[in-house]
Amino acid sequence: MTTGRLIGVGVGPGDPGLLTLNAIAALNAADVIAHFTKAGNASNARTIAAKHLKPGVEELSLLYPLTTEIPKEDAAYRETLREFYDSAAAQIAGHLDQDRTVAVIAEGDPLFYGSYMHLHVRLAPRYPTEVVAGVTGMSGCWSAIGEPIAQGDDVFTVLPGTLPEYELERRLADADAAVVMKIGRHLAKVRRALDRAGRLERAIYVERGTMTNAAVMPLVDKLDTYAPYFAIVLVPGWEARP
Amino acid sequence: MTTGRLIGVGVGPGDPGLLTLNAIAALNAADVIAHFTKAGNASNARTIAAKHLKPGVEELSLLYPLTTEIPKEDAAYRETLREFYDSAAAQIAGHLDQDRTVAVIAEGDPLFYGSYMHLHVRLAPRYPTEVVAGVTGMSGCWSAIGEPIAQGDDVFTVLPGTLPEYELERRLADADAAVVMKIGRHLAKVRRALDRAGRLERAIYVERGTMTNAAVMPLVDKLDTYAPYFAIVLVPGWEARP
Repeated sequence: MTTGRLIGVGVGPGDPGLLTLNAIAALNAADVIAHFTKAGNASNARTIAAKHLKPGVEELSLLYPLTTEIPKEDAAYRETLREFYDSAAAQIAGHLDQDRTVAVIAEGDPLFYGSYMHLHVRLAPRYPTEVVAGVTGMSGCWSAIGEPIAQGDDVFTVLPGTLPEYELERRLADADAAVVMKIGRHLAKVRRALDRAGRLERAIYVERGTMTNAAVMPLVDKLDTYAPYFAIVLVPGWEARP
Repeated sequence: MTTGRLIGVGVGPGDPGLLTLNAIAALNAADVIAHFTKAGNASNARTIAAKHLKPGVEELSLLYPLTTEIPKEDAAYRETLREFYDSAAAQIAGHLDQDRTVAVIAEGDPLFYGSYMHLHVRLAPRYPTEVVAGVTGMSGCWSAIGEPIAQGDDVFTVLPGTLPEYELERRLADADAAVVMKIGRHLAKVRRALDRAGRLERAIYVERGTMTNAAVMPLVDKLDTYAPYFAIVLVPGWEARP
């Protein structure tokens, strides 16, 4: 019977000060620190947690496969990702089988739209597993700009910018407060949907919300030319505020 | 020109280990720690943060007015609360005007359905203000039970249990993942709405999610007889998980 333990560790939205005590304790307890990376990029989660890694701790980089040439709707895309997550889980299982504690560090909150979830569903049924909740990227954004997002009986919704325009419009009109994620190349569409839903005036565009180089502006002032994938749009609720 | 500073400090969902480093730094920097309480109850936020309060630091208890005899729809209810928040903000302003740093501690994340927001909108326009994002109660719940809540292009929504039954049903059928808050006396209605939306089988009932005395069960196993106000129901998305 293995004593290896898996810990999914949320490291928060970017500011290392938004690490929790439990996250730091998990980094100290870990024999192996695993993180997802894209080729040529440092892992964001690792950058956030860097100061708290034990000197010389073993690290396991899980390198996303290159899928840019495969359309996302393609079965081959899903198959490539599935194989990647299977293989990543197998690598971690190898450590767990040797009674090591493995901390998988994740930006934001691990079980809220995080890649960690793919490892969790593969490993948690077989190994002792804990998850350390983290501050989400969206909380980091609205806190950094001091914008109350939802109150009282508000309905709050999170929408991916990838949705069709009419779906975005319908759902934005139907919620009191909203966050639109994955803006990137969907910026112009998201703006049109907000406009038709009557919510454009309230919308706030945020890039790198908790970083020192954050960019924040009313969405009406943001040019349509470019937005990074991880930019988000906040639509604050609580219209009846005093 | 005052040097007084207001800090809204998220202390997370309950486990003191989910305090962030920034929250602890704010507690250390504060001359006054303010917290909301109900008559006869200790402040939850204070209980969570207790170990990190400076010995002898000045505390300001903001005692909610008794409104149980006034219907919530009544203008008198809103007026009573408005006067309470005005008076609480004035007390804090008195400290800020004397160049003191006031930390208002808040369960979860201060700008996500938190009472702190009522002070923020009254004081942030007039005083230097910061907000320290916190781990939300719902993140604490799904992490404690290791339940992935949303992934990829899922639409995620937060609904108050106070909504009419048909609104709950419609919105639960229309989201991939959902959290229903403020369950309390709305338990039977929430269950019926989930059933008609075809989501009851996936729903998980959670009380005191990150506490040692947490109660977690499939909603189908929960009796309708009683639920506390702060119980929540999780409806995980990511139906296509491998």
